[in-house]
Amino acid sequence: MAARVLDGKALARSVEEEVRRDVQAFVQKHGISPCLAALLVGDDPVSSLYVRRKAEACGRVGIRSETFRLPREIHEEEILALIADLNRRSDVHGILVQLPLPPHLREEVVTSAILPEKDVDGLHPMNVGYLFLGRPRMVPATPRGILELLRWAGVEVRGKEAVVVGRSPIVGRPTAALLLSQHATVTICHSRTTELSAHTRRAEILVVAAGRPRLIRGEMVKPGAVVIDVGVNRVDGKLVGDVDFAEVVEVASAITPVPGGVGPMTIAMLLRNTLQAALAQLEGNGCTLEP
Amino acid sequence: MAARVLDGKALARSVEEEVRRDVQAFVQKHGISPCLAALLVGDDPVSSLYVRRKAEACGRVGIRSETFRLPREIHEEEILALIADLNRRSDVHGILVQLPLPPHLREEVVTSAILPEKDVDGLHPMNVGYLFLGRPRMVPATPRGILELLRWAGVEVRGKEAVVVGRSPIVGRPTAALLLSQHATVTICHSRTTELSAHTRRAEILVVAAGRPRLIRGEMVKPGAVVIDVGVNRVDGKLVGDVDFAEVVEVASAITPVPGGVGPMTIAMLLRNTLQAALAQLEGNGCTLEP
Repeated sequence: MAARVLDGKALARSVEEEVRRDVQAFVQKHGISPCLAALLVGDDPVSSLYVRRKAEACGRVGIRSETFRLPREIHEEEILALIADLNRRSDVHGILVQLPLPPHLREEVVTSAILPEKDVDGLHPMNVGYLFLGRPRMVPATPRGILELLRWAGVEVRGKEAVVVGRSPIVGRPTAALLLSQHATVTICHSRTTELSAHTRRAEILVVAAGRPRLIRGEMVKPGAVVIDVGVNRVDGKLVGDVDFAEVVEVASAITPVPGGVGPMTIAMLLRNTLQAALAQLEGNGCTLEP
Repeated sequence: MAARVLDGKALARSVEEEVRRDVQAFVQKHGISPCLAALLVGDDPVSSLYVRRKAEACGRVGIRSETFRLPREIHEEEILALIADLNRRSDVHGILVQLPLPPHLREEVVTSAILPEKDVDGLHPMNVGYLFLGRPRMVPATPRGILELLRWAGVEVRGKEAVVVGRSPIVGRPTAALLLSQHATVTICHSRTTELSAHTRRAEILVVAAGRPRLIRGEMVKPGAVVIDVGVNRVDGKLVGDVDFAEVVEVASAITPVPGGVGPMTIAMLLRNTLQAALAQLEGNGCTLEP
């Protein structure tokens, strides 16, 4: 029996609808809109596309957005000065820097310059620390979207065997931290893992964020597992994940497709993070996630 | 064949000797001693003992220490005011608050009040974040001691199966983060884990910090594993770890005893952290660990 396909697009729409209503209430109460500032360095077409999609999503829910298109050659001081300016502006509630940055810009310096309360990507060490301590404030959008998908699908996390493949600061590590806070037993695998399939085969919840197309084949998945595919790879002009969908859909009990799974959830959660940031700044709350 | 017993006491002595020499050099260069301020709330005998041991260890290596004994009923504002004062004092380089605190004091508020650069226990969200991002600054002393023990024992971490039992902010989580940064495949187990022995049995490196005497029996350990016992339990007036030493010593290839294993290393690493903090504050470096 084929797995249930988790429709991230549909869930994202319903989250957006919820955010849209909450934004309306926010505007009525405060007389201003939540506002997201996005910094795009250079003209990489994929990064440009992502930033445009985020701005469009803001528009759909009533969040104001400003996009700063910066030349590829920009000096680090200049981008830091712009961030300092946005940190000071009380009409800007969320700031994100589209990654990756050109190699002459240090990503950890740039992302750490954003005020933690405006850091809607959750990459500031302070926000990472709170998450890892089990007291999440700003959580990166993709992990938050993954947990929301699991909750929506009725997947119990507590006491489950969860395996995360990939240890990036933006997906693998924070997803592991969230699963751990929700009482899963968590294993983090990565490129140095020697027996990947031994781990993936015991996962009841398998999250794959390795950036390698078809890394996870059918025989590597435990029958009945819930499989979350975070990969976004272009193969022969087609978008595919890290999971061999055709094979794994026959083994898993639930699976996210690529596209239409985690991707739309990421954008929906960015909107929610922006609203949460605006609420925290104007009402002094909303900055702590409910469990 | 019985396991090699990892003599944490001997290693701690040699680390202390190294710190003592580095402190001498520091004093010659800067004309002042590194200084650790320790806050002890109430008169719990175990906490008092720990604080006294830390102060004695400071004395052995030439680190100045000040112990603040505070009444159990102290208000949170008062302890925060004291910390603010110590944060400002340029002659104080490290600050620690002995945990646990009485229930009316919020540990996360108190520990977050310490300046990250003086936070020698590594519990400030900022330091936790840097650790989790793989760019450690101030690392809690126990995890740092564990990794030092492994390095000293010649245990290769990269590519190994590491299992950490326990997910406390002071031991389990940061130890997992360090092992991950050193390229182990890491599993974090805890009280909600359903099949603990299935995990411990596949561990090549097993770190146990659960606070439950004899939790780990011989049959739960993979032959040849390296077993690090962080437990400190008092049973019939005797100090024992979380590992059944008599059984596991026959199965493992290396094991830390209790007492005399991780405990002495924790104190030695606290001294190193204090020196590192003093160096960072006076020389603007030393705050990043070598890999």
